[in-house]
Amino acid sequence: MILLTGFEPFGTHKVNPSEEIARALDGRRFGEHVVRGVVLPVHHREAAAQMAALLQAIDPAAILHVGLAEGRARIALERVALNVMDYAIADNAGYRALDEACVAGGPPAYFATLPLRDVLAALTADGVPAYISSTAGTYLCNQTLYATLHLVSCAGRTTRVGFVHLPLSAGMVAAAGVELPSMDAPLMQRAIETVLRVVAAT
Amino acid sequence: MILLTGFEPFGTHKVNPSEEIARALDGRRFGEHVVRGVVLPVHHREAAAQMAALLQAIDPAAILHVGLAEGRARIALERVALNVMDYAIADNAGYRALDEACVAGGPPAYFATLPLRDVLAALTADGVPAYISSTAGTYLCNQTLYATLHLVSCAGRTTRVGFVHLPLSAGMVAAAGVELPSMDAPLMQRAIETVLRVVAAT
Amino acid sequence: MILLTGFEPFGTHKVNPSEEIARALDGRRFGEHVVRGVVLPVHHREAAAQMAALLQAIDPAAILHVGLAEGRARIALERVALNVMDYAIADNAGYRALDEACVAGGPPAYFATLPLRDVLAALTADGVPAYISSTAGTYLCNQTLYATLHLVSCAGRTTRVGFVHLPLSAGMVAAAGVELPSMDAPLMQRAIETVLRVVAAT
Amino acid sequence: MILLTGFEPFGTHKVNPSEEIARALDGRRFGEHVVRGVVLPVHHREAAAQMAALLQAIDPAAILHVGLAEGRARIALERVALNVMDYAIADNAGYRALDEACVAGGPPAYFATLPLRDVLAALTADGVPAYISSTAGTYLCNQTLYATLHLVSCAGRTTRVGFVHLPLSAGMVAAAGVELPSMDAPLMQRAIETVLRVVAAT
Repeated sequence: MILLTGFEPFGTHKVNPSEEIARALDGRRFGEHVVRGVVLPVHHREAAAQMAALLQAIDPAAILHVGLAEGRARIALERVALNVMDYAIADNAGYRALDEACVAGGPPAYFATLPLRDVLAALTADGVPAYISSTAGTYLCNQTLYATLHLVSCAGRTTRVGFVHLPLSAGMVAAAGVELPSMDAPLMQRAIETVLRVVAAT
Repeated sequence: MILLTGFEPFGTHKVNPSEEIARALDGRRFGEHVVRGVVLPVHHREAAAQMAALLQAIDPAAILHVGLAEGRARIALERVALNVMDYAIADNAGYRALDEACVAGGPPAYFATLPLRDVLAALTADGVPAYISSTAGTYLCNQTLYATLHLVSCAGRTTRVGFVHLPLSAGMVAAAGVELPSMDAPLMQRAIETVLRVVAAT
Repeated sequence: MILLTGFEPFGTHKVNPSEEIARALDGRRFGEHVVRGVVLPVHHREAAAQMAALLQAIDPAAILHVGLAEGRARIALERVALNVMDYAIADNAGYRALDEACVAGGPPAYFATLPLRDVLAALTADGVPAYISSTAGTYLCNQTLYATLHLVSCAGRTTRVGFVHLPLSAGMVAAAGVELPSMDAPLMQRAIETVLRVVAAT
Repeated sequence: MILLTGFEPFGTHKVNPSEEIARALDGRRFGEHVVRGVVLPVHHREAAAQMAALLQAIDPAAILHVGLAEGRARIALERVALNVMDYAIADNAGYRALDEACVAGGPPAYFATLPLRDVLAALTADGVPAYISSTAGTYLCNQTLYATLHLVSCAGRTTRVGFVHLPLSAGMVAAAGVELPSMDAPLMQRAIETVLRVVAAT
């Protein structure tokens, strides 16, 4: 099984394309793996708590977290998670972390363990703008990747874990009326399918 | 008949999505109008010369020029054409204009005559990022819009004329591997279809 | 005499570097010309009305309007003024124009009449990032340039007229804490002095 | 003593403002500390080798590395160094690393040990655009910060270490003629002086 997570909407966003994709791909099969799609809360404690419970409950072969990054123009394959919470805006519980650790006493960073170069090659071959990113930010996205990698590491699991950031969807930018990059929702879903295909094959 | 023009590739671009859309929609019907799709050369004299010949030959009810604008994140509905050629790069004939007039003695500018607010409303309702732009640049795109509006004005025609700039396609940005905004080719074609539908209805 | 205008703050801006420069250079001499520095209101009617009164009262040899353009990274030498008011935000009187003419029945555009290439060369030689811009926007800056060029044209005057857009000042971006380009206030003042020197010499 | 390092020019850059600042501040006193200004090579092995020799030779109380980051609009106070070399362009020896470790077997990351919040507050109070950055990239800048933090950590030293990225200088953008953010060289030097003052006081 591959665990695929999206996030609920946050900040000024009414929707979150990562949520829609997690729902759309729930139950889909890639190679030998069935996808379990889950939507995580944008909450400084609950997101990590739900991940801990999910890891216990379903023991996936791989975990792909997906989130939203306003301002980015391409699919971002996150290379690393930092042990930092430094929120530019409050989470959905109204909490705004400043220079806190994701896990007190945890190491400064973990590298994602998905085959990012293979994923990038597959996306590029498929005509999807993508790149390997060296910062997942310091909000819930980074924190969730850190928390999961820490859980997997501490438990001695071999679960591969990664994070993909999506641009705003075309519909979000159309509605907002601002000059920000976007990606069409069907293209983003196709991109995540490509990522899952590569992950399932390795 | 509605004349729909795209441009051939130019500069470092191997393809031009405006060319592909002009070819794809050639012969399509919108309301009472059949689309005539034509690809214009990126040439400081030939583009305008071909437009003059086309206007004589087919007398369209409306003209929609489509071009490519690297760096823009949304469909740009051009409001105005300036009587300026100031090329940042050479055209496909190797010519690089500097502060020349498109038409010597012509007025400083013409406004496009398509119903831009209606087009913008239709695109936004359809979830396509779009805006009304106040500069079509000073390259072939602006020059072609100026030339056509000048021809129509001098001939006393009532032909409505407009210009739409497209972002880079997703495939172009994927291949280039740079952090530039893009739009998926099918979404761009759908956008031009929406523009044509509004134009045909008015 | 050279008339140098800045604008009062507007929108969310607490200050306006164009105001500060107009005040700082008031009374300064460039070649044979003394600068008259004036601060214009960000008001859909009053800005143009004050310009009309000033033109009558002081009959300057040249007019340099200066304004603020958030998001631009370089000094922008505006090439053209459009006969369009299309405000993204309300002016300081709370008025938000939508697709109105600056001057009903006026021509679509006027070109600025300062020697922009000479100004650009002087700024570049002086190490100041600058460029010739093809859109002054559709807010008060464009409107003021249009109004002044129209007044000068209708009166048959030979007064040379131009507009320079400034980036946000370093202090504004420091205070705002956002990733926007800026320019240091002393560098911007030096840039305007360079513009005035070129204008005074021609 | 405080060790202040800049880098030589690299890629298409003819100059490097970090080099100029390291030279200009060499010998300057901040509090009890004299600055030793050094220019490092943009070389995948030599930069770290020179740092190792310098640490041995001068045993500084603090180390401030300064580098250049085209495209950034503000002074970037780097939070973290990753154990990754992934060069977008070759270094000055013509070497282009792809997904290598800075130090084989080293930890994924080190956090910088300068008081970044105090530095940010001082810069902001001084009107200098600045922010705390979560990625120093994956080129020589990140690598040098990683190498130094690793050396200090392995040696059990208490030397505080940090990295500041500068925007392009105004002169560089003026010469290049491109729409990129810049900062005036005197403002950047003043910013580094402010950083050194805070570092010297803590």
